Amino acid sequence: MGTSSDTGTSSGIGATSAPLDGKADQRLSEVHSPSSRVAVFPDDAPLKLESGQLLAPLTIAYQTYGRLNADKSNAILVCHALTGDQYVADVHPVTGKPGWWQALVGAGKPVDTDRFFVICPNILGGCMGSTGPASPNPKTGKPYGLDFPVITIGDMVDAQVRLIDHLGIDVLFSVIGGSMGGMQVLEWAARHKDRVATAIPIATAPWHTAQNIAFHEVGRQAVMADPEWRGGAYSEVGVVPKNGLAVARMAAHITYLSEKALQGKFGRNLQNRATRSFSFDADFKIESYLRHQGSTFVDRFDANSYLYITRAMDYFDLEGAHGGKLANAFTGTQTQFCVVSFTSDWLYPTRDSKAIVKALNAVAANVSFVEIESDKGHDAFLLDEPEFHATVRGFLTAAMAKRGLSLGEEQG
Amino acid sequence: MGTSSDTGTSSGIGATSAPLDGKADQRLSEVHSPSSRVAVFPDDAPLKLESGQLLAPLTIAYQTYGRLNADKSNAILVCHALTGDQYVADVHPVTGKPGWWQALVGAGKPVDTDRFFVICPNILGGCMGSTGPASPNPKTGKPYGLDFPVITIGDMVDAQVRLIDHLGIDVLFSVIGGSMGGMQVLEWAARHKDRVATAIPIATAPWHTAQNIAFHEVGRQAVMADPEWRGGAYSEVGVVPKNGLAVARMAAHITYLSEKALQGKFGRNLQNRATRSFSFDADFKIESYLRHQGSTFVDRFDANSYLYITRAMDYFDLEGAHGGKLANAFTGTQTQFCVVSFTSDWLYPTRDSKAIVKALNAVAANVSFVEIESDKGHDAFLLDEPEFHATVRGFLTAAMAKRGLSLGEEQG
Repeated sequence: MGTSSDTGTSSGIGATSAPLDGKADQRLSEVHSPSSRVAVFPDDAPLKLESGQLLAPLTIAYQTYGRLNADKSNAILVCHALTGDQYVADVHPVTGKPGWWQALVGAGKPVDTDRFFVICPNILGGCMGSTGPASPNPKTGKPYGLDFPVITIGDMVDAQVRLIDHLGIDVLFSVIGGSMGGMQVLEWAARHKDRVATAIPIATAPWHTAQNIAFHEVGRQAVMADPEWRGGAYSEVGVVPKNGLAVARMAAHITYLSEKALQGKFGRNLQNRATRSFSFDADFKIESYLRHQGSTFVDRFDANSYLYITRAMDYFDLEGAHGGKLANAFTGTQTQFCVVSFTSDWLYPTRDSKAIVKALNAVAANVSFVEIESDKGHDAFLLDEPEFHATVRGFLTAAMAKRGLSLGEEQG
Repeated sequence: MGTSSDTGTSSGIGATSAPLDGKADQRLSEVHSPSSRVAVFPDDAPLKLESGQLLAPLTIAYQTYGRLNADKSNAILVCHALTGDQYVADVHPVTGKPGWWQALVGAGKPVDTDRFFVICPNILGGCMGSTGPASPNPKTGKPYGLDFPVITIGDMVDAQVRLIDHLGIDVLFSVIGGSMGGMQVLEWAARHKDRVATAIPIATAPWHTAQNIAFHEVGRQAVMADPEWRGGAYSEVGVVPKNGLAVARMAAHITYLSEKALQGKFGRNLQNRATRSFSFDADFKIESYLRHQGSTFVDRFDANSYLYITRAMDYFDLEGAHGGKLANAFTGTQTQFCVVSFTSDWLYPTRDSKAIVKALNAVAANVSFVEIESDKGHDAFLLDEPEFHATVRGFLTAAMAKRGLSLGEEQG
C-alpha cells in the first residue's frame, strides 16, 4: 500500500458566502474539500474493485468521535446507509441538521463515545468527500460522472479497510450499521474475520430481493429520465437533475416507513386547507411531506452517487457470492454477532435477518438476535427506539466485559 | 336529461395507415373515434361534478357483450380499474392484446355472456373514447389538458348512470369491479341503492390510505417532472411525456405484485447474461420487466388521464363522505354483496375489504365475504384464480335463482 496522507478538519464550508443557490454550492464544496477529516491514498496504491477495475487516487472522508485507547482495542466502525454520511453524531455541514445517528452515538449514548473511538467514513461512491462519481476524474480533471466504475458493497468495505489500516487499527471492537450499513457489516464479518470482534447488522438483509431491486430501478430511471441528468455529465454544465432525483427519493421514502406509520402520521389529513382543492396541489399532508422529502434531498445529495450506491446494493448477494450457501460466508468466524430487526420493516423484513441468523447458527457462530416491536418501519433504526438502544448498549457492555476491554488512560 | 345519440362500432382504427409511431396515432384515434360503441350526451344535459363544475358534452365509450333480455333484468355493469378500458372481453384496438378480464367474462365464463348482458364503459376521465383530459375542450377546440375538471369516483358513477339510463335499464343485475372498479361498485351501491341488485367489489378499499396516496403522488410527480408534459399541454405540440409516465407506471406496478410473486417470478435472475455487467444496463430480469411495463404503457395510455384518475382515487373516501361512519353509506341497502379480497394484496389488503364487510353488517346488509388464498398480489383479480372465479360464478348463479331471473327469448 502506498503512503497515505491525512488532513485535519478543513474549512470547506463557511469560507464562502452563500449565493442564491447556496446549498448546491455547499454540497459541491464538500465533494472537493470536506469539512471532516480526510485520508488520501495515492496513485501507486490503487483500489482493485470487484469489477476488475483499478481506482486511484482514493479519498476517504471520515469523522471520528471519542479517543482511541492505548492498545487500539476500542474502535467502533459505523457504516452508513444509502443516503447517510460521516456526520453520524455532529451537525451536517450542508443541512445544518443534527448527526443522523445522534440518538445512538455520543457521550453516554449506547455507542458511548466516552468509552469507544467511533469512526464513520463516507462510503466509496458517496458525495460528502470520499471518492465517488462527483469527484474529479484524474484522467480528465472533470467529474467522473458515468466514467466512475460501478462499485459493490465489498468495494466499499475494501476502501474502509484502507482507512482502518491507515489509522493503525488491527481489530475493530465492533462494526455496526443499519440498512446498507448492515450490508457492509456483513461483508466486513465475511471478508475480515480476524479484524472484527463484534458485529451489529441492523434492519438489513444478506441479499437484495426482486422487490428491493425494483424500487431502486424506479429511482434510477427517474433520475435518468430527467433531461438535466445529461447522461451523467450534469455537473460539467452546472445543472442538477433535481426533479428526477426528487421523484427517486419520494419513491424510496415510502419504503422506509410502515403503512401504519404513514397512516398514523398523515392519514387522509389535508394540508393547510379545509376541503379538497379539486386541483393537483398538495391537498394531503402526505403529498406535501413527500414533496418536501424530495426537494430537500436534492440539496444534499448527488444524483450520480444515488445511481452508483443503489446499484451496489442491488448487486449485493452474500449467498450468491458464497456458492449459493449463505453460511459459507461465515465459516470459521469468531466474531460475536448481534442481529437486530424491526417488526414493521417491510423493506428488509425480519425474515431477512432470520436468514442471517440461520446462516450464523449453521457455522456455530456466537449470535444473538433481537426483533424489536415497532410500528415505525425501516426507519426505526434511525429513531428513538428505547428497546433497540438498550439492546445495543447491553450487547456492547457485555462484549466489553467478556473481552476485558482496556479503556486505557483516556478513561482516567 | 337531453337526448343522447349512439353510434355503432366506428372504424376509428385500421382506417389509417400506420406511420413510424403507429401506436401513438392509434391511441389518439381512439380518443376521438373509438372502436367501441359510443353514447353522446349533448350540451343541454351537462354532468354536474362533485367539484361543482358542469361538464358537457359528455361522451361515454362502451362495449357490450351478450344480449339484454326482454325485461332488461340481466344487465351486469363491469367497472374497470385505473388503466383499464371498455375492452373487457375482446381484443384491445391499440395493443391487439386480449380483453383485460377475458378470464372472467365471456361465453361460459363466471360472468357468462350467454346469460348476461355485460356493459363495460370507459370511465369518465379515461382516454379510450370517454370524455377525459385528452378530449377536445369545446371552448377551445384543443385538448382539455389541465383545463379538464378534477373528477371523483362518484362523478365516474354519475356518468355511468347516464349510460345505463340511455340503455333503458332500471336495475342492474350486478355491478362488478376490481381495484378502482371496486370503488365504483361501492359508489353505485351507496348512491343508487334501488338500481343495484347485487354488487361484487373485488380487491378494493372504501378509502385511499396515506400509503395509497403516496404511491400515486410519486407517479404524478414523475409525469409532471417530465419537461415534455408541458404543463399538461403536450398533445397540442405533438409530444408525449413518455419518460415520466413510464416511471409512474413502474412505481405503480410494484404495488400490483406481491413481494413473493416478484421473488418467485424474477428473484435475482439476470437477463440475457451470465454475470453482472458492472453498468447501468438492465442486468436483472426484474429491471428489464419493469422497463418493458413502463415503455409499453405509454403506447396505450394518456399521461393526463393518469393524473386525473389517480387523483380521483386519492379523493375516494366513502367513510369521510358519510359523516365519518362507513356504515352510513349503506343504510337501507337491499343490495346483495359479495366482497372479495386476496391474501397477498398489499395495495388494498384484506383489512380494507373487512372494513367494507363490517360496515355492511352494521346495517344488516346481505353480504358474503371471501378472502382468496393467492400469492399473486393485487393483480390476482385479473388472473386465472380458480377459487375467485368459482366464487363469482357461484354468487351470480345463486343470485339468479334467488331473484328468479328471466333470461327471455335470447336463451332459446
